[in-house]
Amino acid sequence: MPKRVTKKRVRKTPRKSSHKATRTRAGAKTTALSCDQRSLLLHKKYQGKLEVSSTVPLTRTTLEEIYTPGVAAVSKLIERQASQARTYTMQGRTVAVVSNGSALLGLGNVGPKAALPVMEGKAVLMKELAGIDAIPLVLDSSEPDRLVETIKDIAPGFAAINLEDIAAPECFYIEERLMDELDIPVMHDDQHGTAIVVLAALINAHRVVHKDLARSRIAIVGAGAAGTGITRLLLQYGVGDIVLIDRHGIVSTMRTDLTPTKQHLASLTNTEQRFGGTMEALAGSDVVIGVSRAGTVTSEHVRMMAQRPIVFALANPEPEIYPSDALSAGAAVVATGRSDFPNQVNNALVFPGMFKGALRNKVQRFTDTMKLDAALALANLVSRPTAKKILPSIFDKRIVRTVAQAVHR
Amino acid sequence: MPKRVTKKRVRKTPRKSSHKATRTRAGAKTTALSCDQRSLLLHKKYQGKLEVSSTVPLTRTTLEEIYTPGVAAVSKLIERQASQARTYTMQGRTVAVVSNGSALLGLGNVGPKAALPVMEGKAVLMKELAGIDAIPLVLDSSEPDRLVETIKDIAPGFAAINLEDIAAPECFYIEERLMDELDIPVMHDDQHGTAIVVLAALINAHRVVHKDLARSRIAIVGAGAAGTGITRLLLQYGVGDIVLIDRHGIVSTMRTDLTPTKQHLASLTNTEQRFGGTMEALAGSDVVIGVSRAGTVTSEHVRMMAQRPIVFALANPEPEIYPSDALSAGAAVVATGRSDFPNQVNNALVFPGMFKGALRNKVQRFTDTMKLDAALALANLVSRPTAKKILPSIFDKRIVRTVAQAVHR
Repeated sequence: MPKRVTKKRVRKTPRKSSHKATRTRAGAKTTALSCDQRSLLLHKKYQGKLEVSSTVPLTRTTLEEIYTPGVAAVSKLIERQASQARTYTMQGRTVAVVSNGSALLGLGNVGPKAALPVMEGKAVLMKELAGIDAIPLVLDSSEPDRLVETIKDIAPGFAAINLEDIAAPECFYIEERLMDELDIPVMHDDQHGTAIVVLAALINAHRVVHKDLARSRIAIVGAGAAGTGITRLLLQYGVGDIVLIDRHGIVSTMRTDLTPTKQHLASLTNTEQRFGGTMEALAGSDVVIGVSRAGTVTSEHVRMMAQRPIVFALANPEPEIYPSDALSAGAAVVATGRSDFPNQVNNALVFPGMFKGALRNKVQRFTDTMKLDAALALANLVSRPTAKKILPSIFDKRIVRTVAQAVHR
Repeated sequence: MPKRVTKKRVRKTPRKSSHKATRTRAGAKTTALSCDQRSLLLHKKYQGKLEVSSTVPLTRTTLEEIYTPGVAAVSKLIERQASQARTYTMQGRTVAVVSNGSALLGLGNVGPKAALPVMEGKAVLMKELAGIDAIPLVLDSSEPDRLVETIKDIAPGFAAINLEDIAAPECFYIEERLMDELDIPVMHDDQHGTAIVVLAALINAHRVVHKDLARSRIAIVGAGAAGTGITRLLLQYGVGDIVLIDRHGIVSTMRTDLTPTKQHLASLTNTEQRFGGTMEALAGSDVVIGVSRAGTVTSEHVRMMAQRPIVFALANPEPEIYPSDALSAGAAVVATGRSDFPNQVNNALVFPGMFKGALRNKVQRFTDTMKLDAALALANLVSRPTAKKILPSIFDKRIVRTVAQAVHR
């Protein structure tokens, strides 16, 4: 067993893109640039990725309409009737993409400034895929109540709030308070965007292996924002047998170290009252969903699973287990969060459409029904799912429209 | 005397643009639309005036650079060295245009949503005149400390903060704290943008009447944000005789009802210890600057002034006194805040250039020297000032460059 671990570690190194980049730089200059290098060059060239521009050309005539004195008529109208802001200002078509950088990608708590490139990226996807004007706001506040107050303060200018990359467990409290206290829709993408795309991928993966998702035994490795969101949506879908694993093992009602959120999840999952770690949780499972970090799922784990197991290793940039290892260990369908392997489970398949629907249909709150409908609709866009194709391509033009249709009053 | 007042009231009514609009609607349909009507139509047509778009086309290749996995390299770089955000994200070229709508134009406290059209307008001017990406943020907070905390929270994503239309006296405390506690430049435009353009206009008005600005006797009607900013900058310029008037009369050290800001201004102005109201303040003055509301300066007031008096009636949309009345009463140079009279004193001549300079030259704080330099440079753009031309046109391409040059380290 130690041999295997050693071998795995050695094999993993060359796959890390940052290592590859280093070697390339040290090597011949003619070698093609790594993705990291190209990304750095692109960001420097454009000084970020978003531009704010005027929808109206500035002339002597429009100046009076855009600014004083004409603009006062618009302000007066909105003062009398606040809801007119939706029609007469950008508010009705603009989403705030908000993060404090406390749980960025696989990088942990990197703070607001380092979160900005990712939030700009989300805003680019919102615009390019769904035509939504999105503004990244990176906040210098880690205290949950202060974060809530700040977001409430900036809310009047926006039609919806997209929370991103905020650490668990604070993210649950923050999202809940904002949903209750604001009259515009709020969605923490790491919980719900991830849950919706995972459910869509699971629906099609089960079609591939000819199993019934509701009767599947599912182990979820990682009980952060994503693990919690996935668990909740799968419960809503009707999955009866879910086991959730955090750093300390299976989340169960027997444990005394759980946060309130995990206590609640413990009461709804692990119906067989299993005890132990990942190995115990995965034994006999039909599905494992990794939303933790590299190395938490091994080939041995996969070999312990039920027949034709489904392995989603979604940690970014390095998955819990590499697809080649999972497939060698018997996995029937494998998905990751990466674009360089088949079956990329990417929130970008979901959040542009969810917000498009919310804006178009003036939805005040995202509901579980909308999320379930969106997942099913997304799955159904793949007419004949195969082991290598359980999700549509992000460039499939039907996605945003289809997901948006699930979000209505 | 009552006759005159009545006549004035009757004459003023048809000039109000909103009244004109109403009459037009009641009248023939073929009549041209009023400015208010055109503004409402324009805002509705475009659903506001700003658009957020991607600087990078989204393709299969750029997706990996814009978003995961490549974007992580940019985040890691900024995590190690926060100042790199300026180079690798939009932060380095983006200004937040922030208001809580507590003192919007001449409309008073209209709240955040009604402030949005004006902030969008400011952002349009920033982009169209100075190429700056500006994001309007309207905040739902009237409590000064909370406003400060919220603005500090959103600051990491911006290169500078442009405060707009925040009521006095809170605006002084808010700006001061932000200037002290943030490492990016902060400017309350209503104080300093106004002060700079007023000083520029005064320099040229004095050239027209052949008087020495430093020796002028100046009465300022209105002691809010604008009145305070103008007083402070004129003191810096070296004007020795300033009298400030608020709702209760001349601001003097004898008064017991003054805010701390006004107490301080009282100690620096009104050196002759005058007592009374506008009439007493204006008697013998060379200049009156109205930054209050319609009707606070009358023809009689102007007749009491020194020879060849200068009258700036800057209340918007309706000036303290209409130019025709001021000129009839003997004014040598008249300016307003409006675009439909000669000599529009418009902050838009100033703030795009001030922020352009701050961004380009990585300035951390706007200083009085920069403001004085900017005013003088702006004045000097008019090579031969006349009574009808004391400021350059807002479409003069030299303005932004000239003002920006005054803002350097």
